[in-house]
Amino acid sequence: MRARDLVIGFPTVTLDTPALEAARLLADRDLPGLIVVDERDQPFTILPGTQVLRLAVPRYCQDDPALARVVDEAHADLFLRGLGDRTVRECLPEQPRELPIAEGRATVLEMAALMARTRSPLLAVVDNDVLVGAVTLHVLLDHALVS
Amino acid sequence: MRARDLVIGFPTVTLDTPALEAARLLADRDLPGLIVVDERDQPFTILPGTQVLRLAVPRYCQDDPALARVVDEAHADLFLRGLGDRTVRECLPEQPRELPIAEGRATVLEMAALMARTRSPLLAVVDNDVLVGAVTLHVLLDHALVS
Repeated sequence: MRARDLVIGFPTVTLDTPALEAARLLADRDLPGLIVVDERDQPFTILPGTQVLRLAVPRYCQDDPALARVVDEAHADLFLRGLGDRTVRECLPEQPRELPIAEGRATVLEMAALMARTRSPLLAVVDNDVLVGAVTLHVLLDHALVS
Repeated sequence: MRARDLVIGFPTVTLDTPALEAARLLADRDLPGLIVVDERDQPFTILPGTQVLRLAVPRYCQDDPALARVVDEAHADLFLRGLGDRTVRECLPEQPRELPIAEGRATVLEMAALMARTRSPLLAVVDNDVLVGAVTLHVLLDHALVS
């Protein structure tokens, strides 16, 4: 079994998608992350869900748990407003050394090794330079557990 | 809203749970990770799904994508057998500086900051030293998006 056999359709966002829209997409569809594509519809990177939160949390609360504690409950509930009109571009962490992007011919083992190395439960799959979808940790495990 | 209001029941494993059983639990219930408890049922750490894969992938394939590629497709499909009778204890990555464990009184903002810092889409929630369940990224976003 190869990546192209296990691939599922998966929503993409661009660098200019509003971060709040990305948060809605993650929540509505219970996704582990989003595929970020460039202007040629090629996968640029994977945006992990937790990194959308990072942008919404004021910087002074990110590093010091004690400071997050002093914000009262009512205001804390509204923290996603901190996203304002910022975009996916601003959510992205530093570009990692290796991206969770697999070729269509990648085997189950290659995909497992790539997920483990990049710690990403989501791989974008590219076949002949075209983004064809994603393979998630759950799809990979479902397949591997019946093999 | 506080952690204790958003908490959901969540399966736990111990350090001695077989890694293959952990993989089944992740797959069957579509979980982003598992709460690992110690012998006193206290949360010890969070096991991210991708780290179960790490243990199943032969070490020589983990670091070098070219070596994963030479394993033929039929054998690659069976990579989970590499887990053998190993346990969750052996899956755990180096203990991180900060664990994704929140107190019941943590606000939504505190939980968001903790998920962003630890990059964990899953927090174990402890109230009066008792594990009461978990808050996931999706539960947190669902709440924050309607506030």
